[in-house]
Amino acid sequence: MRRAGHIELALGPRQPGVPLQRWLYESLRAAILGGSLAPGARLPSTRDLAARANVSRGTVLGVFAQLEAEGYLTGAVGRGSFVTRELPERLTDGAPLRGVTPVPEPRMAPSIAPSIAPSIALSTRGRLLARSPFALDGRGAPARAFRASQPDLDAFPFELWTRIAARRARRTRRDLLGDGEALGYRPLREAIAAYVGVSRGIACTAAHVAILGSVQQAIDLAARLTLDPGDSAWVEDPGYAGARRVLEAAGARVRGVPVDAHGFDVDWAREHAPGARFAYVTAGRQAPLGPALSLERRLALLDWARGAGAVIVEDDYDSEYRFADPPLAALKSLDTAGHVIYCGTFSKLLFPALRIAYAIVPDALVDPFAAAWSLTARHVPLDPQSVLHAFIAEGHFGRHVRRMRVLYGERAAALEAAAQRHLAGLLHVPRLSAGLDAPAFFAPGTDDVEMARRAARAGLETRPLSFYAVERAAPPGLVLGFASIDRAAIEAGVAALARALEDPTAG
Amino acid sequence: MRRAGHIELALGPRQPGVPLQRWLYESLRAAILGGSLAPGARLPSTRDLAARANVSRGTVLGVFAQLEAEGYLTGAVGRGSFVTRELPERLTDGAPLRGVTPVPEPRMAPSIAPSIAPSIALSTRGRLLARSPFALDGRGAPARAFRASQPDLDAFPFELWTRIAARRARRTRRDLLGDGEALGYRPLREAIAAYVGVSRGIACTAAHVAILGSVQQAIDLAARLTLDPGDSAWVEDPGYAGARRVLEAAGARVRGVPVDAHGFDVDWAREHAPGARFAYVTAGRQAPLGPALSLERRLALLDWARGAGAVIVEDDYDSEYRFADPPLAALKSLDTAGHVIYCGTFSKLLFPALRIAYAIVPDALVDPFAAAWSLTARHVPLDPQSVLHAFIAEGHFGRHVRRMRVLYGERAAALEAAAQRHLAGLLHVPRLSAGLDAPAFFAPGTDDVEMARRAARAGLETRPLSFYAVERAAPPGLVLGFASIDRAAIEAGVAALARALEDPTAG
Repeated sequence: MRRAGHIELALGPRQPGVPLQRWLYESLRAAILGGSLAPGARLPSTRDLAARANVSRGTVLGVFAQLEAEGYLTGAVGRGSFVTRELPERLTDGAPLRGVTPVPEPRMAPSIAPSIAPSIALSTRGRLLARSPFALDGRGAPARAFRASQPDLDAFPFELWTRIAARRARRTRRDLLGDGEALGYRPLREAIAAYVGVSRGIACTAAHVAILGSVQQAIDLAARLTLDPGDSAWVEDPGYAGARRVLEAAGARVRGVPVDAHGFDVDWAREHAPGARFAYVTAGRQAPLGPALSLERRLALLDWARGAGAVIVEDDYDSEYRFADPPLAALKSLDTAGHVIYCGTFSKLLFPALRIAYAIVPDALVDPFAAAWSLTARHVPLDPQSVLHAFIAEGHFGRHVRRMRVLYGERAAALEAAAQRHLAGLLHVPRLSAGLDAPAFFAPGTDDVEMARRAARAGLETRPLSFYAVERAAPPGLVLGFASIDRAAIEAGVAALARALEDPTAG
Repeated sequence: MRRAGHIELALGPRQPGVPLQRWLYESLRAAILGGSLAPGARLPSTRDLAARANVSRGTVLGVFAQLEAEGYLTGAVGRGSFVTRELPERLTDGAPLRGVTPVPEPRMAPSIAPSIAPSIALSTRGRLLARSPFALDGRGAPARAFRASQPDLDAFPFELWTRIAARRARRTRRDLLGDGEALGYRPLREAIAAYVGVSRGIACTAAHVAILGSVQQAIDLAARLTLDPGDSAWVEDPGYAGARRVLEAAGARVRGVPVDAHGFDVDWAREHAPGARFAYVTAGRQAPLGPALSLERRLALLDWARGAGAVIVEDDYDSEYRFADPPLAALKSLDTAGHVIYCGTFSKLLFPALRIAYAIVPDALVDPFAAAWSLTARHVPLDPQSVLHAFIAEGHFGRHVRRMRVLYGERAAALEAAAQRHLAGLLHVPRLSAGLDAPAFFAPGTDDVEMARRAARAGLETRPLSFYAVERAAPPGLVLGFASIDRAAIEAGVAALARALEDPTAG
């Protein structure tokens, strides 16, 4: 029986931060897998090895126990430990397992030997899934001009939220530790049902409310529940890329429907893109162009859905922020036949890191929606839901929204005024009546991507309207977010934007 | 021009809790949609209406403004308000819009007139998505014998967690309010990379760690990214229903691969279910039967994945809880070619309502995974991630896991002992070496569903092994969760179980 002598048993160098036991384990495993400790080879006694490796005998015993548990070693009391004979032949030729060497500092090591080419192909839908329009790296403070869809984080009553969170945490009953309801924390769902009833004319109960992490999840789930690959879906053109992309990834044949001053053109869609079974609309304020869907078209859209047995996802992403007029009743408030899934999110109303959104689901879809959400996600964490519930129930939510409506209205006015002073003839900012973002328009034929590049060189974040185009060219322009920065920043940003647009080399 | 006289303008009754303005708005809208206020009809003056409805004139003006904004009314200064002439004809025949009446208390009203049959068909995959194996109604305290996969919530250091949460909340920098990184809170990802490096032999960096809400989401995302509908996937048979169902819903052709004392039978799979491109395995401790995947089979499975360009999802759901032996190195620790997505969850280690899980993703899939997660979900809420990070970084996580390992080990021993006393000849509980649940076996031919029914009648929660069967019958038995109840409850539960199994009428 071969004995593992000093020469053939090479212990690798110990990287800083790697515990002794782990280092010894990895060294021995590497020696076995690499072949320098052959199948059947006898290991040094624990005493010898402890002395040679300059570790305690207990450490060695622990490592042997581990390797035995994992099948690398077999032990016989009093006769020592041996490398398992049954290790597959190919283990000893080293090659396929180069890469298994003493592990350096975990956070520094790649999980794959770079020399080995990755060999996993994405599926067809995988290639579509892997196209997110969202920033993957997160976008924290400070706010910049003119980032879109950003609430003002400095205006959020953070200390108040924190106090509520601390109090809730102290009071949280233990059953808030267990598995929650798939559709969300019941008291929060009741508060949302009451809120959309009063503020949007939507008659529903807590049973119709689903708490999700994002509107994206609502669209993804609604699409997978009601569409099979190849079924077609209507989206607004230009329209919200997040909806279009997630529908494409779900296998839908996405058709862009033109938008005019009355919103989504339902008649055009019925005539030129027949056979759809799904529609995504921003009825309250079309993203990005801004018009509300007219009453006549709302009724026509609902008619279509009734006739087609189709689903309408109404993404009501910022109706809270109509500066002058009262909020419009939701399309969902006219949905007597139950074809509309209404979506809203608190991430835009309070703060993005909250990640709590909701869907008001028609009776026919409540149970399938709950089951599908449970299967693919389980549920949203309970603690943030309970804090949000307290924030709403104690009236802080309503107060905050009212305050932000005034604040954002002032900022919209500031943007309009600054645009008149600095952007006349360059970029037209229409009258702003609502929301966090403004569409702004160039003269026909302008390359808005190039213009957005110029703005970026001047340190300004804008999004070209062409980014929202689906099947047809969008009017050239930029989306300018004005809600998260103060009036001085808006004034300065508009002046800088004017310089940048006039002069390609600006900034 | 017709004038809306007292008779034809009927204001509906005001439900308790409905504000005056809302009641008046709904009444007028219903009158218009119902036809009692015809297109072109002139409304009473705001003064008359205020007097008749016994509300302030301001209220009436607000309601008129709302109806005008929504397109129901057109106004002419000094000439009063009129019902819009352009309302579609069919609006006035009432029928399709019966259901639009003054809205009663929101939380009491269904969102759909029950008289109208729902007409949304689920898609083929929708019918598969709508089959969740999880409880939809949540499962709070108190724990019961023998609920599976439940940590002991009473043993969780809840006050400590709460203090950390409060402290974190006070200290949280404002940039924790903004959009987070798609793959999760960076410090938490670093802590997890270090943890799996030391405890599982997985060499990875924070860049490979994806924070998700559940392992279900990791499986769903991995399947959609790498499989197209019809591609086949291997699961363990018997095996975890959550994985099988979500793979089926993703369109995979799911093949059940037999499990023996060495775990998932890779050779059988290669011979009898060729062409798979995906495998789901519980290598550390097979769910539900318990064996660890042998080293030889681990290497064979990795060989297969390399050759097939396939993905292996390793669900390491409870390796923290090996009572006697040190934790086994993960299959992922041998994954030199980068085909394994390793998943773990804190919801089982700490508390289910936390909903924080993680995946260690190979280099080739990191970017697609990040983009797909961002597109379909955005990211996990930041606050719970930062609290969990502090809980780990301050050493509380490691201490809690060690304490639970001892506690659950004692409970496993208590279950074994009680089973020997009460269940001999009825139900065989094998030696338990790890985990939160025990597989227990009946004599061949026993109907374990009927046995689970008997247990349920005695107030005992068990799950028949046949629940885990995929393509072939599973050995008849029950899964008994022992981790969330104390030894007395285990003893009492086993005694009650014995009575129930012996006597169908027990309980």
